[in-house]
Amino acid sequence: MPRWAPDAALRLEQAAVELFRSQGYAATTVPQIAERAGLTTRTFFRHFPDKRDVLFLREREFPDVVADLLAAAPDGLGPMALAMHGLLAVTPELEAWRDAIRERRSIIATDRHLIERERSKSAALAQAIRDGLRRRGADHIDALLVSQTVVGLFDTALELWTAEDSDATLASIITDSYARLAEHVSHPEQPAHGPENAD
Amino acid sequence: MPRWAPDAALRLEQAAVELFRSQGYAATTVPQIAERAGLTTRTFFRHFPDKRDVLFLREREFPDVVADLLAAAPDGLGPMALAMHGLLAVTPELEAWRDAIRERRSIIATDRHLIERERSKSAALAQAIRDGLRRRGADHIDALLVSQTVVGLFDTALELWTAEDSDATLASIITDSYARLAEHVSHPEQPAHGPENAD
Repeated sequence: MPRWAPDAALRLEQAAVELFRSQGYAATTVPQIAERAGLTTRTFFRHFPDKRDVLFLREREFPDVVADLLAAAPDGLGPMALAMHGLLAVTPELEAWRDAIRERRSIIATDRHLIERERSKSAALAQAIRDGLRRRGADHIDALLVSQTVVGLFDTALELWTAEDSDATLASIITDSYARLAEHVSHPEQPAHGPENAD
Repeated sequence: MPRWAPDAALRLEQAAVELFRSQGYAATTVPQIAERAGLTTRTFFRHFPDKRDVLFLREREFPDVVADLLAAAPDGLGPMALAMHGLLAVTPELEAWRDAIRERRSIIATDRHLIERERSKSAALAQAIRDGLRRRGADHIDALLVSQTVVGLFDTALELWTAEDSDATLASIITDSYARLAEHVSHPEQPAHGPENAD
């Protein structure tokens, strides 16, 4: 996946995170970011449509990659298995980036525009999964339900994975979260969960 | 629930929808909306923080109402049953508003800022459910997973309910969608769904 080795983009992201951390998101300009990365403003805008987008580099290819994975998945999988297959196949790319993603998320939480951008990212992933499931023959309702649920699960797993005290892999958190969710959905009356049931 | 009878707010909403439909969202001003409703701009801003918020009147109380319902729910319900209880208890208020909500959603789809506001609304509902579940003793992970899933289910149900060819009640769509989702989560390998399995 050559689209996943964006060196200039990573340098710009690093410079942006340092500036956002030291002087705040609102007070930082694109020329400042470019200068700190040793690149031009023009290069910045070749990689990012706007300032806030620099914080979303590490998942920007997700919708396309997941769509490709759904299209290439083996036959005979149901919509939920297909969607989870797509999600778990891209997860290894993220495992090494936990600290960077954690820091990025802590900056996002400081600014309403960044939070809205984060929600757009989740919505774009849901849309890609929905479209991919439709192309694999799922009906409209199943595609909606499954895509929303899987993205909600992924967002939850990212939050747990980037928590300060977490040391589990993202893949294991996704798998455990799925198992927990399955119990709750199948047995809605069951009382609050203990850790002994977590998988 | 006296908070659910906002007459001036409903007049402003009606005027706004008419203007957005005839001249577009971006071209419409708050003074125009207020004038058409026979009210003042000051009254507008007593009811809505900004122009886009006028389209979100009908669900604005949802987070608070759902939080109250979770707090007042019977003992012995698990997190999923609690969250679904809260959701289904507010649904009857919406049943009569399908045409208005459908029209509102068609306007929201025309403008990026409105779409972002729609996502904030879903996030606020998820947060209210999450907090309500935590107060009822659910652990952090269960509260996250269940709230995300239930709000995804609700968003899907709203989309299906406001589709042009739908005549089912919102409550029945939520119940059917839950059953479908339970099948997919429990049997991820099952192939695409036929309508005979819809409940």
